[in-house]
Amino acid sequence: MSILAVGSVAFDNIVTPSGKAENVLGGSATYFSLAASYFTDVRVVAVVGEDFTSEHENVLRKRGVDTRGIEHARGKTFRWGGQYLDNLNEAKTDFTELNVFEKFHPRIPAEYRDSSVLFLGNIHPSLQAAVRQEMPKVSLTGGDTMNFWIQGANSELRETLRLVNILLTARKVLALGPQALVIKHGEYGATIFFREGAFGVGRHPFRAPALPLEEVIDPTGAGDSFAGGFMGYIASQEDLSREVIKRALFYGGVMGSFAVERFGTERLQSLTRGEIDARFQVFRELTHLE
Amino acid sequence: MSILAVGSVAFDNIVTPSGKAENVLGGSATYFSLAASYFTDVRVVAVVGEDFTSEHENVLRKRGVDTRGIEHARGKTFRWGGQYLDNLNEAKTDFTELNVFEKFHPRIPAEYRDSSVLFLGNIHPSLQAAVRQEMPKVSLTGGDTMNFWIQGANSELRETLRLVNILLTARKVLALGPQALVIKHGEYGATIFFREGAFGVGRHPFRAPALPLEEVIDPTGAGDSFAGGFMGYIASQEDLSREVIKRALFYGGVMGSFAVERFGTERLQSLTRGEIDARFQVFRELTHLE
Repeated sequence: MSILAVGSVAFDNIVTPSGKAENVLGGSATYFSLAASYFTDVRVVAVVGEDFTSEHENVLRKRGVDTRGIEHARGKTFRWGGQYLDNLNEAKTDFTELNVFEKFHPRIPAEYRDSSVLFLGNIHPSLQAAVRQEMPKVSLTGGDTMNFWIQGANSELRETLRLVNILLTARKVLALGPQALVIKHGEYGATIFFREGAFGVGRHPFRAPALPLEEVIDPTGAGDSFAGGFMGYIASQEDLSREVIKRALFYGGVMGSFAVERFGTERLQSLTRGEIDARFQVFRELTHLE
Repeated sequence: MSILAVGSVAFDNIVTPSGKAENVLGGSATYFSLAASYFTDVRVVAVVGEDFTSEHENVLRKRGVDTRGIEHARGKTFRWGGQYLDNLNEAKTDFTELNVFEKFHPRIPAEYRDSSVLFLGNIHPSLQAAVRQEMPKVSLTGGDTMNFWIQGANSELRETLRLVNILLTARKVLALGPQALVIKHGEYGATIFFREGAFGVGRHPFRAPALPLEEVIDPTGAGDSFAGGFMGYIASQEDLSREVIKRALFYGGVMGSFAVERFGTERLQSLTRGEIDARFQVFRELTHLE
């Protein structure tokens, strides 16, 4: 099944205990698409500025990502700078320049309309809702959100969540209504909670680990890469069983763990499915009792 | 195998989002002993003051804990007050009155000398080393420590760690030399790291989850209860295989998850092995892939 991802493309300046990197390609849609590309066909909707070159676009194209939905606008691409010097789990933002992203209104190319899985990156809940309503053939919708919207756009978010099956967030908000809620714990992995009766999978939560990495080089994009692996694996499967969801959560952790091994998206650009499945086994062994 | 636990007995004043409790029996040795008592014979060495009554001692005795090593000193028992209003993972200390604990020098009763497993609670590293050296028949030693000693008594701690097989802490310090290191992640469970060749179990780390509890009533003692379940299960087994260590880590998480369900040690006082094994299954299901 094809997956359509809507989100941000950005250039990041990143400082971590391992060093720094400037103007590296980032953004939620970038990390998500690269991670998901190892599992299924990916189509992306985002906006970039005049500083986004064909070389940048080729990073996605080389992984087979359909980039026809990337709108080229006048001005500069979204830029973000942050550092993780005190805490690898949470960035301290140095600057945010929304640039062309400020007026982003997702436009879905006609060729994308038959996508059956939709991932709504962390944009304004009203935009998320608008995209969902333009995609009548979608059978499963995942959405990412953050405390900022939970607090600042609560009513819009509630409305949007009526249209979302699986919500990914850093905070427990099952009360907001999604059928399944994935709480991302950073270096500790992620837990999925289900509403009673959702997907017919039973109410018990499930948890997948993150790898206890000796050295995290750059945590940027870990959550988006997690989402890409999670949704990408789901989209690659015929049925949405509890076992598929559990494996998807493991694959999410796997893709997040690769993302943090290098600055920016470098590590996600050249993985093999063999490397991915080998790490899946490591994750499995990490928590598996005989 | 009998396990000897050395640590603190305290009376705690606790404030959590669920309410407050005053003068509740606590301390690392208390939580540890109660948790371990569901798996094996437990002997405890600690010091209490004149405010520690036979009723308090009966909390331990009812669980079969051998309390002959509890020294009754003149003065008041160790008292601690803390709150978890901002963060359930970390207490904000209101007060610490060491009282009789200030001059605690563990004295091991002759009847305890045949113990084969030793658990050194979080006391000064020099005291931990002294106890270990008095116990030549011990075949496995676990020790708990904290950042305070890692920073403030680093050379003593290094010396002590030459005598400890398994270190439990909140911080990764495998460089300090234990054969195995258990990092407790609070609500996210725990990970065990091994030194090359230790226990013949291979270098790969292993992680056990904590339960995503809907409601934590009082986090006090979770880490000590974790240690009690972990060491208690190990002491109950004949061999120290990787599989035993993995299960022990799960049982640690199980006992920690029970401890936090009520204020103080209440929940640990009246568990059944059936309840414990049922929750073990829940933990297993929580991370188990087919």
